[in-house]
Amino acid sequence: MSSAPDDVLQLLRQRGQAPDPDALRSLMRGVAAAPEGLAGPEWVELVAPTADPVLTKALVAWRDILAQTDDGLTASPAPLSRLAALREELKRRGLDGFVIPRADEHQGEYVPRGSQRLAWLTGFSGSAGLAIVLADRAAIFVDGRYTLAVQAQVDTSAFVPHQIPEQSPDAWIAANLSKGGRLGFDPWLQTVDGHDRFARACERAGGTFVPVDSNPVDAIWPGRPPAPLAPVQPHPDEFAGESSESKRQRIGTTVKAKGADVALITAPDSIAWLLNVRGGDVPRTPFALGFALLHADGHVDLYMDRRKVPARTLAWLGNAVTLAPPEELGAALDMLGKIGKRVLVETATVPVWAADRLQAAGVSLVRDADPVALPKACKNPIELEGIRNAHRRDGVAISRFLEWLASESTRRPLREIEVSERLQALRQETGKLRDLSFDTISGAGPNGAIVHYHASTATERILEPGSLYLVDSGGQYRDGTTDITRTVAIGTPTPEMRDRFTRVLKGHIALAMARFPVGTTGSQLDALARYALWQVGLDYDHGTGHGVGAYLSVHEGPHRISKVASSVALQPGMIVSNEPGYYKTGAYGIRIENLVAVREAVIEGADRRYLEFETLTLAPIDLACIEVSLLTDAERQWLNDYHRRVRQVVGPQLDDGSRAWLEHATQPL
Amino acid sequence: MSSAPDDVLQLLRQRGQAPDPDALRSLMRGVAAAPEGLAGPEWVELVAPTADPVLTKALVAWRDILAQTDDGLTASPAPLSRLAALREELKRRGLDGFVIPRADEHQGEYVPRGSQRLAWLTGFSGSAGLAIVLADRAAIFVDGRYTLAVQAQVDTSAFVPHQIPEQSPDAWIAANLSKGGRLGFDPWLQTVDGHDRFARACERAGGTFVPVDSNPVDAIWPGRPPAPLAPVQPHPDEFAGESSESKRQRIGTTVKAKGADVALITAPDSIAWLLNVRGGDVPRTPFALGFALLHADGHVDLYMDRRKVPARTLAWLGNAVTLAPPEELGAALDMLGKIGKRVLVETATVPVWAADRLQAAGVSLVRDADPVALPKACKNPIELEGIRNAHRRDGVAISRFLEWLASESTRRPLREIEVSERLQALRQETGKLRDLSFDTISGAGPNGAIVHYHASTATERILEPGSLYLVDSGGQYRDGTTDITRTVAIGTPTPEMRDRFTRVLKGHIALAMARFPVGTTGSQLDALARYALWQVGLDYDHGTGHGVGAYLSVHEGPHRISKVASSVALQPGMIVSNEPGYYKTGAYGIRIENLVAVREAVIEGADRRYLEFETLTLAPIDLACIEVSLLTDAERQWLNDYHRRVRQVVGPQLDDGSRAWLEHATQPL
Repeated sequence: MSSAPDDVLQLLRQRGQAPDPDALRSLMRGVAAAPEGLAGPEWVELVAPTADPVLTKALVAWRDILAQTDDGLTASPAPLSRLAALREELKRRGLDGFVIPRADEHQGEYVPRGSQRLAWLTGFSGSAGLAIVLADRAAIFVDGRYTLAVQAQVDTSAFVPHQIPEQSPDAWIAANLSKGGRLGFDPWLQTVDGHDRFARACERAGGTFVPVDSNPVDAIWPGRPPAPLAPVQPHPDEFAGESSESKRQRIGTTVKAKGADVALITAPDSIAWLLNVRGGDVPRTPFALGFALLHADGHVDLYMDRRKVPARTLAWLGNAVTLAPPEELGAALDMLGKIGKRVLVETATVPVWAADRLQAAGVSLVRDADPVALPKACKNPIELEGIRNAHRRDGVAISRFLEWLASESTRRPLREIEVSERLQALRQETGKLRDLSFDTISGAGPNGAIVHYHASTATERILEPGSLYLVDSGGQYRDGTTDITRTVAIGTPTPEMRDRFTRVLKGHIALAMARFPVGTTGSQLDALARYALWQVGLDYDHGTGHGVGAYLSVHEGPHRISKVASSVALQPGMIVSNEPGYYKTGAYGIRIENLVAVREAVIEGADRRYLEFETLTLAPIDLACIEVSLLTDAERQWLNDYHRRVRQVVGPQLDDGSRAWLEHATQPL
Repeated sequence: MSSAPDDVLQLLRQRGQAPDPDALRSLMRGVAAAPEGLAGPEWVELVAPTADPVLTKALVAWRDILAQTDDGLTASPAPLSRLAALREELKRRGLDGFVIPRADEHQGEYVPRGSQRLAWLTGFSGSAGLAIVLADRAAIFVDGRYTLAVQAQVDTSAFVPHQIPEQSPDAWIAANLSKGGRLGFDPWLQTVDGHDRFARACERAGGTFVPVDSNPVDAIWPGRPPAPLAPVQPHPDEFAGESSESKRQRIGTTVKAKGADVALITAPDSIAWLLNVRGGDVPRTPFALGFALLHADGHVDLYMDRRKVPARTLAWLGNAVTLAPPEELGAALDMLGKIGKRVLVETATVPVWAADRLQAAGVSLVRDADPVALPKACKNPIELEGIRNAHRRDGVAISRFLEWLASESTRRPLREIEVSERLQALRQETGKLRDLSFDTISGAGPNGAIVHYHASTATERILEPGSLYLVDSGGQYRDGTTDITRTVAIGTPTPEMRDRFTRVLKGHIALAMARFPVGTTGSQLDALARYALWQVGLDYDHGTGHGVGAYLSVHEGPHRISKVASSVALQPGMIVSNEPGYYKTGAYGIRIENLVAVREAVIEGADRRYLEFETLTLAPIDLACIEVSLLTDAERQWLNDYHRRVRQVVGPQLDDGSRAWLEHATQPL
């Protein structure tokens, strides 16, 4: 293929643009490496700021062709020739092994296709994992969620699967690396904390942990996609609620107070929130990949590919934000050393590459949490109002969906994928949906018991009478990110299902009603959501709640509600999910998830400041699944009050038929 | 006074003993420095193994005289001449300041009189605190429990009070020590962890933190008591349930597994449990002060004053335990270095003196928790049966006490001290009481709201109609240690009191009924006990539960139930208190405390191993304080079941009158 299609070049020339064909193709390959989303081809702005429909259509057609180019990522298991080629490459470089983590430079939940080295090399597509390749053996490490997937996706004769944390990569390295062995790693992909563990393991084996200049996987990956290029757009004050200027000043002061002059920010959601911009480089999450240096005086050096930043966004960023190519980050870190600056880094996420470069430049590091994470988590009143609006809107889509499901499932057999597509379509009918906030989990019967289930034509089941159907889904709206799980009885549920559902609901309500003193962490509250299940010897193997961004990541920190000890107290404005569940393998899954916001509790005579949760999500909880005798009066009251709110807020937005169904679905118990 | 009274010398000589008068006086001064306890003058064995009543009486009389000798500890506030003398002494030694912690070498809750340097110097008698003396200023640091006490007991013109943790000694040192200043400390009293914090603070001030060879306070303290000498007695297998041999072998293996050859044990309760002996060197806690080196092969070198170890105990210890004078510990540590041993130390409690000596000797330190703490916390079946017996016995005393209180308080005004004395007398009537397990907290009305209240003739109140009376007490029996709090209405309680009492009770019951998966920590359960209070904006500022020893410390680790994050999971056999409370300053205090034991929960169909609590304490909870409408059916059921157990176990041990009262006090709701 030529570097750019003639029709596109001609259309551009007709409109007075004279693009360099190679540069244009490079730009379009970046565009094609970004996910498509549901908001239309806004990326056209990057190619032609004022494209008409004809040009747009031609560009979209080209993008679609580029996006279909085989990058080798769909091969599962991956051909063993890749492993052989990597071993050849390692030998050439004088390395005895190499570590291939799932993570990219930003240590986020999603990584762009060109960074999915673990998936390309092994076929494993899970969201966490790690392979280690030695000359004569290789291992892949995944957690309990993926023990089945790894068997299905990976050639386990070549990559021996290990389950973390029971079997640790550290121990494997210590046992398998030969004395004097050189185990390579990509310092962009290894965090400082992670590196130190692995380096010690190499030491125990009598070997060394060796950084490479360039990733050997990239050298042997033909058709590897370039970095994604999705347009970076302003996130206006009407949603952000605080100017970037104000945020930068405020957090610059924090950086100063921590004893640093500059903070290196590597989390793209932190950058998006700090600069009031949104992007689209990875699926389901509206941020742009890049790095930032936040100076104590509030100015920011942003390291990001200029091609994805339209002129209007450059203007929006203002003159206290300078834009530079990512390749210049290294020189900037060197300069910080020359002028004697102290730099704050978060060792749990910062790449070894950056920390080493800083230390080589003589910079003293201040090790602390990403200073943006906590302010970002505490939503301001404008953000909160946007989030409430997003939930009111989302609640209409969910309620219409539940009504459709209730009636349609009595008429014909429904399958998981068509059901989740129906839900997406109803969300799109709001006219405001930018994207889903994650891939919908649509699980009928036994599939509902698989916590991270993803329906495919091979696995999907029919929603059968007498079964439970679990649907966990969410939307990205400019004013907020939603995440809701409902579990619905198809036909008549068994008494056991109702008992379990009601215990999950009791946990949900205990948390929803909880008031707690300032200073309380999510770890302290977690047991409230499990107590009713624990009493009958049941539990669920996931956290009870995760933070949620404001039109950002559906999973964000630094707070959470889980068994794992946390030092981060819940604070007013934090959004967190309330999602206890119960899963009976091979039978059914139950989860009841609402998002809640932490707010001040107004309690007369309180002995100190107390907080409580405001429930944001508005959609019926299936009354058919509830065993009323298990509820206390207070719990029943909470449910009735909640359902009244749903009726009052969602009802007026429905047509008469749907409203009648909602009245019925939310009737008081 | 001569070195020993003539009558005693004569009586001893008549019985064929020819004691050296000076040695005898020294021994008796040590005896007099130990607390008296309630078990009689068992220490006579140390002087005359077969003393008759005449000799015993003479020795007891002498001891009483010695015990009354003025050691300066009752002066409150302490005369400022002491501070002046200390400053003089520091100057003489070339020091610019000195740190005086409340702790002794063992970092325990109780310290012997001769180690109460902080109390002698300042007058402060609290169980935690620290003074720092510089040439021109001095400060005393106490926590929130003692902010009132420090004002009452200390001359605050000389020692400026500071509240920890808000105002830290580290910050004070950094701000007040002069550049080049030498701040002295006693390396026996400073832990490794504590030392490092202070040393950094001195560094920040441009000064140094300097260990001293001998404590300068001791040099200026006339009449300072010697180390206590209470007899060390065998703790037989019928109570211990496992031979010392077996314990030493088992924990020696742990020490090996941690990568060490020897563990240095500095906690006297660990030593007592490991060697199956009990002592009486500090109040309310039956252990002997000393140090031990536990070798991986199970043998122990015990560093303890031989004068308090009778021959029968030496025989009981057996030949795998060698006894040496405490002064020889240093040489032993040196030897460990010479022969290349690795030594496990717990840096949170080990004296800097020992860690420095080990490191100077070339020993590599393995930093880990005291290896005895966890096995000691997990009681074996024999210990548990003993503990159950102790609680059955204690429950009789408590029930008789509550009956007496119910009738007597309607007849005449009762005062706090006489009431607690009555309780002690009833415990002594069991014929098995060795000591109280701590000083009884007997608080009427507003005094009940002072969490660590100690009644004195100056502070005690009358138990008035319409008030609440709180009594927190416990006994030391050879088969177990008890700790119970009951809150009783005198006359008719107000609706508010009943509301608060019922919420505390709901928290108590939530914990008592809880089942939880293996791996759960006390921090995860803590909120269950607070939830009902939190809902109305109330809380209590103490932990919910502490570990309890088996005829040992009433407060022991490593587990607890509290807001503070813990990494120690609850395990079968652990004893822990369940003691939520509520305190209205100036009005009343409420606490409901039972001890519980962790045990396996038998649940059909459980998805993993679950644990639950067995309630050990058996005594009525005041029905007059309960607002029944606030209880759920399950809570009411729990209370009725508990009270039925109390009736069944305690009832048959009472006389007819008391049994009738108990029937009434435990009637079903």
